[in-house]
Amino acid sequence: MTIENISANKSFGGWHKQYSHQSQALNCTMRFAIYLPPQVSTGHKVPVLYWLSGLTCTDENFMQKSGVQRIAAELGIAIVAPDTSPRGEEVADDKHYDLGQGAGFYVNATQAPWSRHYQMYDYVVKELPNLIEETFPVSDKRAISGHSMGGHGALTIAMLNPTRYSSMSAFSPICNPMATPWGQKAFAAYLGKDKNSWKNHDASELMRQAVQFVPARVDQGRADEFLKEQLKTEILAASAKVNDYPLDLRLHDGYDHSYYFISSFIEEHLRFHATYLNT
Amino acid sequence: MTIENISANKSFGGWHKQYSHQSQALNCTMRFAIYLPPQVSTGHKVPVLYWLSGLTCTDENFMQKSGVQRIAAELGIAIVAPDTSPRGEEVADDKHYDLGQGAGFYVNATQAPWSRHYQMYDYVVKELPNLIEETFPVSDKRAISGHSMGGHGALTIAMLNPTRYSSMSAFSPICNPMATPWGQKAFAAYLGKDKNSWKNHDASELMRQAVQFVPARVDQGRADEFLKEQLKTEILAASAKVNDYPLDLRLHDGYDHSYYFISSFIEEHLRFHATYLNT
Repeated sequence: MTIENISANKSFGGWHKQYSHQSQALNCTMRFAIYLPPQVSTGHKVPVLYWLSGLTCTDENFMQKSGVQRIAAELGIAIVAPDTSPRGEEVADDKHYDLGQGAGFYVNATQAPWSRHYQMYDYVVKELPNLIEETFPVSDKRAISGHSMGGHGALTIAMLNPTRYSSMSAFSPICNPMATPWGQKAFAAYLGKDKNSWKNHDASELMRQAVQFVPARVDQGRADEFLKEQLKTEILAASAKVNDYPLDLRLHDGYDHSYYFISSFIEEHLRFHATYLNT
Repeated sequence: MTIENISANKSFGGWHKQYSHQSQALNCTMRFAIYLPPQVSTGHKVPVLYWLSGLTCTDENFMQKSGVQRIAAELGIAIVAPDTSPRGEEVADDKHYDLGQGAGFYVNATQAPWSRHYQMYDYVVKELPNLIEETFPVSDKRAISGHSMGGHGALTIAMLNPTRYSSMSAFSPICNPMATPWGQKAFAAYLGKDKNSWKNHDASELMRQAVQFVPARVDQGRADEFLKEQLKTEILAASAKVNDYPLDLRLHDGYDHSYYFISSFIEEHLRFHATYLNT
């Protein structure tokens, strides 16, 4: 696999870099960002936190707005932020922000016209970690986190692959996409009308039925404008309760769905992941 | 003066808010952002750090990318970020990024067509602080900082008003605009061809001749792509030396002109200002 460096910025003694590469899973050119903490300069292989962003985002939003680099530099964790969908003029798209480019939902599409490129599940679970672990001085210890649509992605991907991720977390995740408008629209388009195929990508379903547990933390703002209609945190909480799933769910008065919320609590998420990545 | 709240996000226990208001100095509607730390909820009047952004920026760049809120919340300092120029369809503009809207250079224009709106010096020094101190639970203790064009603005404004600001700082400032392309283009347009009027807005000139000192810190990346041609940090350093000006100038290997540099050192700047704001 060829990989091309397209930017580099020193940050908290480490490096934020963007790369492009030809993705086989997605059948198009993709861009991702990586933060390499200062510890890599000593030849130390660091663990990786994968960050999955929400609707409309690219690799840039989290790296520019979360302030994650300060804590990643302290703890010696690399951060990888993929894009949120396949991209390009030849890639199917939709005129609305919640379907198509910028809205891949971290599933493998089975339906035309989406199936030709929209294989984000395979990209995030397999192709991208393989590329990262071949290219950079990182270990195979992985954690995963994300926001909103990316929170849904992080929780479902970790629960479907409980041996690949040592911990999972989410900010403001879409907790029950089978039952909420963003999720229903995307799943119908990408996965088709058979709702049995949807269950595998619904965090509340997976958490209710999980046998092997991944340590989990979820933070949710009580003033989030999408909480009632789109996120359904209470369904995830009920699933965790019925299955004794180790979910540390924290609700915060006044906080909304924005990166101002993420930046306020990203340090706690990194410290949570670090306890598992470093054991 | 009427002032309209247009957004509010909880952040590190405090609030990031955007407001619009009709500016008399600028003769147009302006937007600014303020971060109010948690300490204001106890009725405590907090000091204010004014942040002046660089070319092409609005009130949003620093608030979204610097991570300043975490430290402002800890230290109990409000942050105010004005826009970088007058705005609006009726406001004179230029097709290039380094003149006109987004490029006000923090001076009072004397030349047509700019003089009708481009009075950013008066806006930042007088009108905005008056509005802030009338509207919010803040004290009249002020510090000022900025980046690039805004670093030039912060240093010149503080040195021209040494009793109004307890400290000043800058990231990657334009240090000698009289002698560098961005500055020469803007000063010729806004101030006219008489270079005597330019000296009052050149940080290196002001630092060389200052009688009353303002504690100053400047950070500059050695890998900054604008360092040689546009910034001329060495001229500022020479001015400080010849006048024994209390300038703490720090050069950093590998860092560039981006917000990744600012976010890496903004904590040190806030702690620097706090030592003067709280005495």
